[in-house]
Amino acid sequence: MQALILAGGSGTRFWPLSRRLRPKQLLALEGERSLLQQTVDRLPPIIAPDAVWVCTTEALADDIRQQLPEVPANQILAEPEGRNTAPAIGWSIRSMPETNRDETVVVLPADHRFADAASFRDTLQLAAAAVEQGDRVMALGVLPRWAETGYGYLELGEQLDSQTGLRNVASFTEKPDAATAQEYYQGQTHLWNAGIFLFRGSTLLRHLARFESEIGRGLELIAQQPERTAEIYPTLPSISIDYAVMERLESIATLPLDCGWSDLGSWEALAEILIANNDGNRTQGDTLAIEATDNLLYSDEGTVAVLGVEGLVVVRTGDAVLVMPKNRSQEVRRIVTELRDRQRTDLL
Amino acid sequence: MQALILAGGSGTRFWPLSRRLRPKQLLALEGERSLLQQTVDRLPPIIAPDAVWVCTTEALADDIRQQLPEVPANQILAEPEGRNTAPAIGWSIRSMPETNRDETVVVLPADHRFADAASFRDTLQLAAAAVEQGDRVMALGVLPRWAETGYGYLELGEQLDSQTGLRNVASFTEKPDAATAQEYYQGQTHLWNAGIFLFRGSTLLRHLARFESEIGRGLELIAQQPERTAEIYPTLPSISIDYAVMERLESIATLPLDCGWSDLGSWEALAEILIANNDGNRTQGDTLAIEATDNLLYSDEGTVAVLGVEGLVVVRTGDAVLVMPKNRSQEVRRIVTELRDRQRTDLL
Repeated sequence: MQALILAGGSGTRFWPLSRRLRPKQLLALEGERSLLQQTVDRLPPIIAPDAVWVCTTEALADDIRQQLPEVPANQILAEPEGRNTAPAIGWSIRSMPETNRDETVVVLPADHRFADAASFRDTLQLAAAAVEQGDRVMALGVLPRWAETGYGYLELGEQLDSQTGLRNVASFTEKPDAATAQEYYQGQTHLWNAGIFLFRGSTLLRHLARFESEIGRGLELIAQQPERTAEIYPTLPSISIDYAVMERLESIATLPLDCGWSDLGSWEALAEILIANNDGNRTQGDTLAIEATDNLLYSDEGTVAVLGVEGLVVVRTGDAVLVMPKNRSQEVRRIVTELRDRQRTDLL
Repeated sequence: MQALILAGGSGTRFWPLSRRLRPKQLLALEGERSLLQQTVDRLPPIIAPDAVWVCTTEALADDIRQQLPEVPANQILAEPEGRNTAPAIGWSIRSMPETNRDETVVVLPADHRFADAASFRDTLQLAAAAVEQGDRVMALGVLPRWAETGYGYLELGEQLDSQTGLRNVASFTEKPDAATAQEYYQGQTHLWNAGIFLFRGSTLLRHLARFESEIGRGLELIAQQPERTAEIYPTLPSISIDYAVMERLESIATLPLDCGWSDLGSWEALAEILIANNDGNRTQGDTLAIEATDNLLYSDEGTVAVLGVEGLVVVRTGDAVLVMPKNRSQEVRRIVTELRDRQRTDLL
């Protein structure tokens, strides 16, 4: 079994900690290991580091090789240019030796969190067995814990196996409105789409060539003339694996993950998973709070001191500080946009 | 005329910007020049830099000599140990050559602000004339702009000169309660005690020896055996000039200062004198605000970014950041106390 970790993202949601060249997956948001390192760490014994592949961008590849010395350097693949997940997954699988391509491949985001790694591996093994038995394509989903409007959902279809809970996916749905999300959540009819897929590599390539022939042809051309990768890859259609393959497949199966998943999509999401101090603040690094509660105080360098404030995010890095209400964490990108407008590349 | 600037203070009110070895008077809170430098800058043409004396502590003397190259180095006097204002003023005047001691001396705090320096100098000249004519001791007061409970007050007595507005001080009063402060303010019967005094140097020494004979004897001993300063000075009673002399004098005169005075006693006080941007924030240094208003954003190093917050002070230095509601600025010392308890001398 092979793992393919997608680590090309360049999110802005953790500014000022995350930057173009230090995106979220390379950050140790809690503890000492980065989210990418933790993604690799939680795979053994079912997947050893020498069966891990990482797809990233050229700008990040060196740092990723440094973070993951246990992963063979030639399995850290650097896209010449980011072209969304369908080309990235297709190209990564096509880059594997044929024996690996014929194995089950699990595609994993590099920047998610699973509180219960053992339970995660158990579900992964059940899913892998389902792939091996029926040459199935699997999309794992997360049992919703609230009526989230920020995620895509998997609609649960007919049950395929009562023992494992294996079910068909009836449909992929986009981010719902609040009322719809509430229906999904209360009806227990849907799972959060976690972006975790399993399939036999060669099967995925066949589907991709069938649905997106331009990508299929491009990948074969690159395989025959790898020296032309930098020329051909950027011409591949930029399309997600969901659109390109998953939503078009006649049949796709799912299993629910119930293992403390978080996509750590914002400072607020990080606050939710950190343990509160006695004073009700969640802190990382050197911090001091007086008559202050319910704040996320995060210091990457230097001291964060607060007095008399509530419900704030305060983040300090070596060159910047960010202060905002926790419940407006989603709006960090507005600051990044403003910095871009001001051409403050030093802070991006 | 000689100026004696008291620059020994080690306030904590501007933490994290102010530190033991970088107290408020050495900071350029607005613009490029420190409060001490601005205190010297606003004296000419009525007092030239070679008639300026500075009394400070040994820990600060070198930095002050660097900040004030135009002041003769031997006129920057370093107390062996801080002993409050009566010993400091007495010792400084006794250190002047006899010709200077017989001139009018104006005692000035090193860390106050005067928006209108020309008007300040005009009042200073009127006060100096009153000293020269009658060998008077003068305490200048500030026309109250609100019912402040944090200052001492001068009670206005009989008028001495209708043209200049020279009046007797009927009494010195301690910090009043809110109702009393309101009476003072509305009745226009009092001035804020600004800690600015004028007198002939030799006259002050005579009064000091009369009221505080221990200080008088100590100062004469130091004058005769200057090599014993470090031994004798720390034995002088620690007492303020207000208690030791001003409140005991049979007669003391005053003139009102009406020239945009501020003691810059807190981050909030600083915010009051900075000009608000279009978005209602007051900023210094590299800052960025989105949907945020009425904040003081102060960066000494690095970028301060805020989103969706109101009425906060956010201060960033190279090693720390402070966030608090503006109206709790007086409580900064609680943070300093906490840091002291934690033995964080690196931040003090």
